[in-house]
Amino acid sequence: MTTVNRRDPLRLGMSRSRETAVVPGHVTGFFSAHPATRAAAAGSRGAGVTLSTGVTVTVTPTDAATSLALNGEPTSVGAVADVLDALGVRARVEMTTDLPVGAGFGVSGAAALGAAMAANAAADCGRSENDLVRIAHEADVERGTGLGDVVAQARGGVPLRLEPGAPQYGSLDGIPASPRVEYVSFGPLSTADVLAGDTDRLSAAGTDALDRVTDDPRLETFMAASRAFAERANLLSPPVEAAIDAVSAAGGSAAMAMLGQTVFALETGLSDAGYDPHVCRTHPSGARLLRDDSAADESIAVQ
Amino acid sequence: MTTVNRRDPLRLGMSRSRETAVVPGHVTGFFSAHPATRAAAAGSRGAGVTLSTGVTVTVTPTDAATSLALNGEPTSVGAVADVLDALGVRARVEMTTDLPVGAGFGVSGAAALGAAMAANAAADCGRSENDLVRIAHEADVERGTGLGDVVAQARGGVPLRLEPGAPQYGSLDGIPASPRVEYVSFGPLSTADVLAGDTDRLSAAGTDALDRVTDDPRLETFMAASRAFAERANLLSPPVEAAIDAVSAAGGSAAMAMLGQTVFALETGLSDAGYDPHVCRTHPSGARLLRDDSAADESIAVQ
Repeated sequence: MTTVNRRDPLRLGMSRSRETAVVPGHVTGFFSAHPATRAAAAGSRGAGVTLSTGVTVTVTPTDAATSLALNGEPTSVGAVADVLDALGVRARVEMTTDLPVGAGFGVSGAAALGAAMAANAAADCGRSENDLVRIAHEADVERGTGLGDVVAQARGGVPLRLEPGAPQYGSLDGIPASPRVEYVSFGPLSTADVLAGDTDRLSAAGTDALDRVTDDPRLETFMAASRAFAERANLLSPPVEAAIDAVSAAGGSAAMAMLGQTVFALETGLSDAGYDPHVCRTHPSGARLLRDDSAADESIAVQ
Repeated sequence: MTTVNRRDPLRLGMSRSRETAVVPGHVTGFFSAHPATRAAAAGSRGAGVTLSTGVTVTVTPTDAATSLALNGEPTSVGAVADVLDALGVRARVEMTTDLPVGAGFGVSGAAALGAAMAANAAADCGRSENDLVRIAHEADVERGTGLGDVVAQARGGVPLRLEPGAPQYGSLDGIPASPRVEYVSFGPLSTADVLAGDTDRLSAAGTDALDRVTDDPRLETFMAASRAFAERANLLSPPVEAAIDAVSAAGGSAAMAMLGQTVFALETGLSDAGYDPHVCRTHPSGARLLRDDSAADESIAVQ
């Protein structure tokens, strides 16, 4: 009887050699910083939009030393190394993205979360979704590369970060909409430097902005609150300020991605202002594993 | 200057005549019932799988009386009527689904959640995602048609309902996997009748099952715990029991959808046992609005 060896045919969770996760980019419109002794409890409150453009992370467990590559080039990403350590996995990690690094798109958080999800699947670590989000959030916070991207990227859509921290501490809501998103980037801005500075003024402005949006969870209000935050935050470089002003003059609404020299607008805001932006939309699902077979795809009745 | 009239071009949230939401089906493998005075705090703990086959709900606000249709035929769904009342919207509601009604697929919850999301968008109600989930959950609970489908359907994937209730009360986690799902249905079972009976034994078995799965959040454990729950729950009709046994004999793992005369299996469990099942997969994103334009779709880099 061959069935003796087939008693448990659900080999879904068992070790496979290679797994891929896709994680949306995330631009934050406004935030307040909330440090805490435990990294899982630390984070930010605020709001942003997740992007259909994101980071693809493929993890292949190995007996050799862990190695990382970004768009085919060797690299190091502290948060990704920390995630693998937390899971006890050594692996080759291949990351690809069309997003600029260090420009406010949450690439480090996406890389950490994608690595957590793909490593868990590839090495059959048996962690839950919340646990993987926590591990990636802790790594991003401890490396000083992000405070709230990971939890937003796990959710997708237009996330509101009501309370800071990983799932067991934090609390999320969302604006129920899926707009087109346009963005232009003028270069990086160091998250670590800004967060190491005086964040009190930033956080007061961020709290005000979140109050506005929770009172009226509409896209218009989110964009207006984000624009007001960008003005109060005093982080606008000349090209960023010029782009935001140009979109306003064209009748649109733009804001700055926190933290990067990046301007984002909904629908055709930047195009209408004469820019040649990257175009994507909000991400419908948040981070997820890619299936390595698509046998059942034809039967998907729900888009 | 025409821009004077275009100061706020984000007409995304403003009233549109017709909006559509798609909501996954959901089969519960095991649960414990947790009544509460407030419907938002009531619900179930447990686990299940969301399905790529679901319910599509189109809402068109009207000045006439609210009317509902399911697959083109006039119908009444108490939870949907309650959702529209809660939002103060009168509308024509058109629901379509390939799922059997009353057979444990959470069709009532999906209809309620889809109506909430589509009505909010169509009538510009300005509610947040959590608020819409709460309204649909309350309606499903108060009508006795479901205790935990709505929160699971909002999340997608393989949701674990750690604590009962709408978002401000409940707590979710998930098994990070996206298996193929097969199901066969042998007819309805009244949720209201079962829940009106003695649920103590059910709930003790459900609590045990959830402990197993939170200790080891893998698909194999979920299926084993669900099968054990189905046996202890004493709700197995002969064809359901025969199908579960046949899948086991073929080396697979099947369980009963709570509450319906429905058997589900992962991957090819029912096919291997000689059944001709419906085939779908887990739903990657949970409930969401359909965009009525797809201009930005080509730019989606993340699958």
